[in-house]
Amino acid sequence: MSVLKGACIVGQSGGPTSVINASAQGVIETALANENITRVLAAENGILGILEDRIFDCGKEDPREIALLSGTPSSALGSCRYKLKDSDVDDTDYKRILEIFKKYDIRYFFYNGGNDSMDTCNKVSKYMQKVGYDCNIIGVPKTIDNDLAGTDHCPGFASAAKYIATSVAEVSLDAIAYGVNAPIVIFEIMGRNAGWLTAAAHLANVIGEGPDLVYLPEVPFSVDQFLADIDRVREEKGKCIVAVSEGVHDAEGNFISELGSNLAQTKDAFGHSQMGGLAGTLANLVQSHTGAKVRGIELSLLQRCAAHCASGVDLQEAYEVGKQAVLAATNGETDKMIALRRADGDDYRCNVVAVPLSEAANAERTVPVEWMNDDHNGMTDEFVRYCLPLIQGPTTQKTENGLPRFAHLKKEHA
Amino acid sequence: MSVLKGACIVGQSGGPTSVINASAQGVIETALANENITRVLAAENGILGILEDRIFDCGKEDPREIALLSGTPSSALGSCRYKLKDSDVDDTDYKRILEIFKKYDIRYFFYNGGNDSMDTCNKVSKYMQKVGYDCNIIGVPKTIDNDLAGTDHCPGFASAAKYIATSVAEVSLDAIAYGVNAPIVIFEIMGRNAGWLTAAAHLANVIGEGPDLVYLPEVPFSVDQFLADIDRVREEKGKCIVAVSEGVHDAEGNFISELGSNLAQTKDAFGHSQMGGLAGTLANLVQSHTGAKVRGIELSLLQRCAAHCASGVDLQEAYEVGKQAVLAATNGETDKMIALRRADGDDYRCNVVAVPLSEAANAERTVPVEWMNDDHNGMTDEFVRYCLPLIQGPTTQKTENGLPRFAHLKKEHA
Repeated sequence: MSVLKGACIVGQSGGPTSVINASAQGVIETALANENITRVLAAENGILGILEDRIFDCGKEDPREIALLSGTPSSALGSCRYKLKDSDVDDTDYKRILEIFKKYDIRYFFYNGGNDSMDTCNKVSKYMQKVGYDCNIIGVPKTIDNDLAGTDHCPGFASAAKYIATSVAEVSLDAIAYGVNAPIVIFEIMGRNAGWLTAAAHLANVIGEGPDLVYLPEVPFSVDQFLADIDRVREEKGKCIVAVSEGVHDAEGNFISELGSNLAQTKDAFGHSQMGGLAGTLANLVQSHTGAKVRGIELSLLQRCAAHCASGVDLQEAYEVGKQAVLAATNGETDKMIALRRADGDDYRCNVVAVPLSEAANAERTVPVEWMNDDHNGMTDEFVRYCLPLIQGPTTQKTENGLPRFAHLKKEHA
Repeated sequence: MSVLKGACIVGQSGGPTSVINASAQGVIETALANENITRVLAAENGILGILEDRIFDCGKEDPREIALLSGTPSSALGSCRYKLKDSDVDDTDYKRILEIFKKYDIRYFFYNGGNDSMDTCNKVSKYMQKVGYDCNIIGVPKTIDNDLAGTDHCPGFASAAKYIATSVAEVSLDAIAYGVNAPIVIFEIMGRNAGWLTAAAHLANVIGEGPDLVYLPEVPFSVDQFLADIDRVREEKGKCIVAVSEGVHDAEGNFISELGSNLAQTKDAFGHSQMGGLAGTLANLVQSHTGAKVRGIELSLLQRCAAHCASGVDLQEAYEVGKQAVLAATNGETDKMIALRRADGDDYRCNVVAVPLSEAANAERTVPVEWMNDDHNGMTDEFVRYCLPLIQGPTTQKTENGLPRFAHLKKEHA
């Protein structure tokens, strides 16, 4: 454990969230106030910005704009999807990163992202140790998917969950406006392998306006059962609201979204298939089956950037993990990810801890199947107890002229 | 002009909005306090509830729940789409309405809806005058489409506009997170013949995060020009955000949404085609043309029920038109619609006036073409001056457990 003196650099990576910039704010404000950090740098577009020397000095930014980061969705520093090769296979990128770290005397590296980003963090950390370059590296977690291992939940998830539950409640109420002949509504919600966000739609049932059916990718999806479920719910309630994860697949692992899609599936840099078109596919199926009016609603990008409906708890925790990353690193910690650990007791409280990066990198945490009902088409109260505390408190987004006031960074080259 | 004493009845009709229940609240609270009104009734599902005697007594509702109507989207009283035949052709429905009005001694009828609802209002009013039944009838305007004639703007529009501008701004920011290779985003926005809501997306440009291209149904849409516009914008800015109305059509009047749709088009009770699938159709077209990643986002029902993002001005005006409807009727006015008239001057202010129902019924007010730019792919500052004042002020939606607290009405039969 060594206390280092030098510059720090912060970067963001992967899909943005409503609160990832709150974490950046936590890192930047804490680092600017820290006596061991000589200069607070930020990389544009994550690790790509380091490789390409697109680096700016946060100390030259207006502190009032930094303070607006919490209400600003997307990745204010710029994001990337870039997978580092193993350094044993090809160490070109690592040599370049080392060169840049030396150029700016970077002794602290904070990387704000999900599973893949923790993988990047882990690889850079291992390389720096191997070549004997002193640099404390801490991962700052974010992902709307909530699938990061080693943490009770992940900053970014709760705000998306709140927007989803709120929107599903509002649309459910809208759908029954006409009484009889309520349209069937099918929400397609993000989550490739982990159904956390789709499960969050169920929170709307706390106020009596939630989905009647919820399907997660954790268990196989049967089209026949799905249609039978819809028939039963409509018979019982005269309406039917459905929340379904983009990643649902049959017992053989075939994505349901591909049943009706003529579009070639593309893969991203990490080899994941790109989802899409599930809401339309299922809406067509259900329309043919029932003859009823069906609305397929894909929440698409809306769900990950609706900072106007962010969770106050999420915003506060996102800031905190950023802040604690700096405090841990300047206390000599390295090779860790900041994580949230829920305290025992009836009242919700999370402690901030540092866990080894290797625990988080590339692992994927899915929804416990026992939090689903026996028919695997709904969620239990245990899920509500887990999730509801996370969406409390209003957004802190500032407005101007009735619209969000986003942070504006100058990003002058360092 | 006659001052009547008796019961009043309020009903809602047509597509719901985020603030139609604020108007209902305005009617109900004002009527409950009025000495000429002996009983405040509400019809479930609009005119259908009158025909079927599904009528409840608002005086038996908890006033605290009535007060929560403003934060409750959808139609709390229940809506309908039901077109009355001309009484000269078939007066069955009119005789039934008269029977119900006599049964409950209804002397005031407030109908809360859009163009088609003002048509219903107008027909009932003319019939009651013909048969000599004294009943003051006032239309209370609502529609997200803003296409109602006789009023500067229509309650319901501004809240949808605010949600659209806010969401477009947030998604635009999200889309540029990766810098290069930003996905092209195409928003499909409601508005069959009137492009007001699509135009409202342009408000996001006030904060620098709006659509680069805006297409309204007021002018013909050319697919070739659309693709050329996108190429040019991407060349200039390295990104492209598009807002397009569901109702765009070519010079021959063919809906663009039907180009790529295999679904049979259905028509609603008023003979309007049901739109849908435009975002997907255009996204496929643009993807083929550019090879770029394209996101088609249909704002669907979300845009008309996002009460969590309602405009404070809209909420206040929606309440006021309800209130003024009762005051006008009990002052002896009938056969009118309450309208908003914008006062001259730099500061936004609207006066509430009563205009003849015949001015509003079945007329459709579209966006002035001179408020579009010369290329008909964007909006001018004049549109911003018209629209921006309408989206000011926060929602008044109450929350509980981090979720909206909707009004719960008992609806006990009168």
